[in-house]
Amino acid sequence: MEVIDGFPSTSGDEYPLNTTRFIEAAARNVPDREIVSGTGEDQFRYTYGEAYERMQRLANALEELGVEAGDRVGVLAWNDHRHYECYFGIPGTGAVFLQLNLRLHSDQLQYVLNHSEPRFLVVDESLLEVAEGVAHEVSSIEGFVVMTDNDLDEVETDLEPTFSYEDILTEAEPEYDWPYIDETSAYSACYTTGTTGRPKGVYYSHRNIYLHTMQLANSVGISHEDSVAQITPMFHGQGWGLAYAATYAGAKLAFPGRYQAENPEPLVDLIRDEDATVTNGAPAIFMPMLDYIRDLDDIPNWNDLQMMSGATEPPLDMMQGYKELTGAEIVHAYGATETTPLVTMNFIKPSLEEDLSEEEKLDMRRKQGLTVPGIEMKIVDPTTGEELPHDGESAGEILIRGPWVTSSYYDDDRTEHSFTDDGFWESGDAGVIDKEGYLKITDRIKDVIKSGGEWISSVDMENLLIEHPNVRDACVVGLEHPEWEERPFALVEVEDDFNREELDEILSQRFADWQLPDEIEFTDEIPKTSVGKNNKKVIREEYEGRYLD
Amino acid sequence: MEVIDGFPSTSGDEYPLNTTRFIEAAARNVPDREIVSGTGEDQFRYTYGEAYERMQRLANALEELGVEAGDRVGVLAWNDHRHYECYFGIPGTGAVFLQLNLRLHSDQLQYVLNHSEPRFLVVDESLLEVAEGVAHEVSSIEGFVVMTDNDLDEVETDLEPTFSYEDILTEAEPEYDWPYIDETSAYSACYTTGTTGRPKGVYYSHRNIYLHTMQLANSVGISHEDSVAQITPMFHGQGWGLAYAATYAGAKLAFPGRYQAENPEPLVDLIRDEDATVTNGAPAIFMPMLDYIRDLDDIPNWNDLQMMSGATEPPLDMMQGYKELTGAEIVHAYGATETTPLVTMNFIKPSLEEDLSEEEKLDMRRKQGLTVPGIEMKIVDPTTGEELPHDGESAGEILIRGPWVTSSYYDDDRTEHSFTDDGFWESGDAGVIDKEGYLKITDRIKDVIKSGGEWISSVDMENLLIEHPNVRDACVVGLEHPEWEERPFALVEVEDDFNREELDEILSQRFADWQLPDEIEFTDEIPKTSVGKNNKKVIREEYEGRYLD
Repeated sequence: MEVIDGFPSTSGDEYPLNTTRFIEAAARNVPDREIVSGTGEDQFRYTYGEAYERMQRLANALEELGVEAGDRVGVLAWNDHRHYECYFGIPGTGAVFLQLNLRLHSDQLQYVLNHSEPRFLVVDESLLEVAEGVAHEVSSIEGFVVMTDNDLDEVETDLEPTFSYEDILTEAEPEYDWPYIDETSAYSACYTTGTTGRPKGVYYSHRNIYLHTMQLANSVGISHEDSVAQITPMFHGQGWGLAYAATYAGAKLAFPGRYQAENPEPLVDLIRDEDATVTNGAPAIFMPMLDYIRDLDDIPNWNDLQMMSGATEPPLDMMQGYKELTGAEIVHAYGATETTPLVTMNFIKPSLEEDLSEEEKLDMRRKQGLTVPGIEMKIVDPTTGEELPHDGESAGEILIRGPWVTSSYYDDDRTEHSFTDDGFWESGDAGVIDKEGYLKITDRIKDVIKSGGEWISSVDMENLLIEHPNVRDACVVGLEHPEWEERPFALVEVEDDFNREELDEILSQRFADWQLPDEIEFTDEIPKTSVGKNNKKVIREEYEGRYLD
Repeated sequence: MEVIDGFPSTSGDEYPLNTTRFIEAAARNVPDREIVSGTGEDQFRYTYGEAYERMQRLANALEELGVEAGDRVGVLAWNDHRHYECYFGIPGTGAVFLQLNLRLHSDQLQYVLNHSEPRFLVVDESLLEVAEGVAHEVSSIEGFVVMTDNDLDEVETDLEPTFSYEDILTEAEPEYDWPYIDETSAYSACYTTGTTGRPKGVYYSHRNIYLHTMQLANSVGISHEDSVAQITPMFHGQGWGLAYAATYAGAKLAFPGRYQAENPEPLVDLIRDEDATVTNGAPAIFMPMLDYIRDLDDIPNWNDLQMMSGATEPPLDMMQGYKELTGAEIVHAYGATETTPLVTMNFIKPSLEEDLSEEEKLDMRRKQGLTVPGIEMKIVDPTTGEELPHDGESAGEILIRGPWVTSSYYDDDRTEHSFTDDGFWESGDAGVIDKEGYLKITDRIKDVIKSGGEWISSVDMENLLIEHPNVRDACVVGLEHPEWEERPFALVEVEDDFNREELDEILSQRFADWQLPDEIEFTDEIPKTSVGKNNKKVIREEYEGRYLD
């Protein structure tokens, strides 16, 4: 992009945007505001003031270990207060906070470590096994800081040398003189993992995180009066940045600790007990929570709760279920690791508030939403690159640029074909934008089913299928076809009876007959990727050739 | 300040922060959201979508006139929609939007113009006289764009050449291809005027305005659901940035047009009729509005209204009066032209919400408030420069730095002694910070009364005096004294009886006997500066030597 010069300003533009300012502000303005970590008997409570002291101790301790500005320090941890301390304590020194996805396959995790070359790993005791599975092959690592309530000599591991997180904090000085860090230097790194290929490194600058935090706080509307429950895993895309926005706004913060989708009780308790007004997560976690709530005797009153929902389109019955049962509002947002992630957020604009029926509003609110200020987004024909109209019909690839969008992958050849010449990131997502400006993702470009020269959206089809009460999950892929190029094939997890006619009936609401899947097959479990998405690569491989026989 | 380097990031940090993104977002996401301009019969209504088209026409029209990136374009206008169009239309091209204070003395205004060298002036027809009084002596000006509903040939002026704002917009193309502008280039300029010396030029960068807008929107909590009435004059410090924050958030916007403090009815009507939830202004305007409301038969319900109050400490009876009568909340904020202006904003932090009595909360809320995230503020001994503790007692000069604080004055020798070596702006304000972090301005450093080696705050004394029901206004200065160095002298505007004993009684609540003014003198009108502050320079000159006789 061409950038022109104007008249010189007198502003202090050399003053760098460093996220240290956010925790400083929280410790200064709301030192007594509470931070809650974990659930049940192991729950831990302290304040911004106390957290800030521990972050300063962590920064001093890292310097004692020899960590210098520019070094990478990896973190393998759950959503808890120690992980949160790393959010500020590591990058505040000028080092890079390397987020490690504990659900990654060990091959991929090892690749990430060898590619980013951290000098130290900070590991939760319960995740030592994950670290042990990969760290021996990573020569850059000089030591392991173990997050545990136990004494270090009770910790069993073959990793060495190890340090106790608590011990090094206790021994460190409680005050740290935060440096001012060039705002274009890396603050953190997160590796994005698709279904194919090696992870790609996104290294967020301090400026990037600073601006994203301010925007997220504004888009969600977080103030010091809010209580924020960070449910999205903190090891991926900074947990969508919510803990930063909460810190920036001085809101109460609640971390669930380790949790599993199969056991949603602690999450529901946390939101209820801490009077959360904002939380975030994916339908994969919000759905079992809703099921759990349905069976409760005392349904919580969540009239003040906004649930930021990402990853996939929120199912209609989930949105309605939460609203009717608890009063909570599901707010759909869209983004990716490459976009920090906030790109769009959904709200019903005032002019539509009166015009639309409740049903139409729900339909609207399932879309990915409106592009937030500061971000440029367009949809283009993936072949010609030509921009497509916002007519709600024309589907194309979504291109994104802005101050918190990555402009390359770290040390990676794939940078070359992932960005346009004028700096847009090619998301690989296919979508339409309606005349009101609402984005709707229709598919991954590579998952679009190309049949007889037309596009069929596999995602739309999946979303419709899972609306059937007996369908737990669904995956639709295009399989090679001698006549039509590709034809849709659906794999479904059904709970009870499997009735092809009923499913066709549902699909016929929005799909033409020629678009219906050639086959719908029953399965016990749809293969998933490490981040819980349908693993279409594996499914395609398993069923490829099926329509060629 | 020293800034260290870290590891390279992959973020798109070269993407410049340009305020054009804000109006683009409003026009994209809430094109039908209303903008109201003026009051009564001349009221004009349109939408963000329509305003955006006119801004594009303005940008094209300016280019037609020959305006280029880096050129200055001056604006002399009231708070209305055309002025608002200049907020985006001028700087969006890369030119500098030069704010001209229409209340400035012609000598000062002429100095500003000759110092900033605008190529064009955009002038409201009703302010042509002001322009005529100064522009003939400003050789840089090539033409005058007249904002008027009349035909140009009906406009009487000796300025030339003139252009009709409406005509050039009509003739211009409705679409404009906004350039990307280096974010450190000047977006706008505002000259700060003290009671002494020539105005000093603050040239805000695009980045500065962008970041300030995001912070203001977050601090106030503005969303697309709000309705914002811009009462603070838009020609000074961007009207404290509120119209930007409203645009950024997609809120409804209301401009009062031309108004006078003596006639508050249109302002009250505007806030009521447009269901304003946020407005801004100084006690000088909020006080007569409250007096007017008191006499109304139907008192407005302003339970949802936040009134951002700046310039001076809000009087207690004003805060209570609004709350009790209308439900509106006065929110005190502090800043200066040099700080864009947001430095502190007042809210009662959650931990104090329960601990303090209602009366203590009111006392707390009259303070300037808590430093917003991103800004660094400290108080120092003005002689030694040593930082003073936050004990609520130690008074010193307030120093400020941050991304929206100026780091110099444009082409001005006074830059040299206005900033510390590490980039703090020396505000000239004296204040104390309490242990909770709340700032309280006690005086201007130069207005502090130094008596017998102790400080007496002239501002505190003035604030107490105007709490007396019969006192309309008060000004306290230190006059030279042979024995004590200085002694306080008070000038008061009284409404009815003048009773020295009653005033002493009020002052004795907070001042020791030795601090009471040696004289309290009655006056019909306290001399004011162009921005409505007590003109202490004039008063000191008039009464100097009084205690020496």
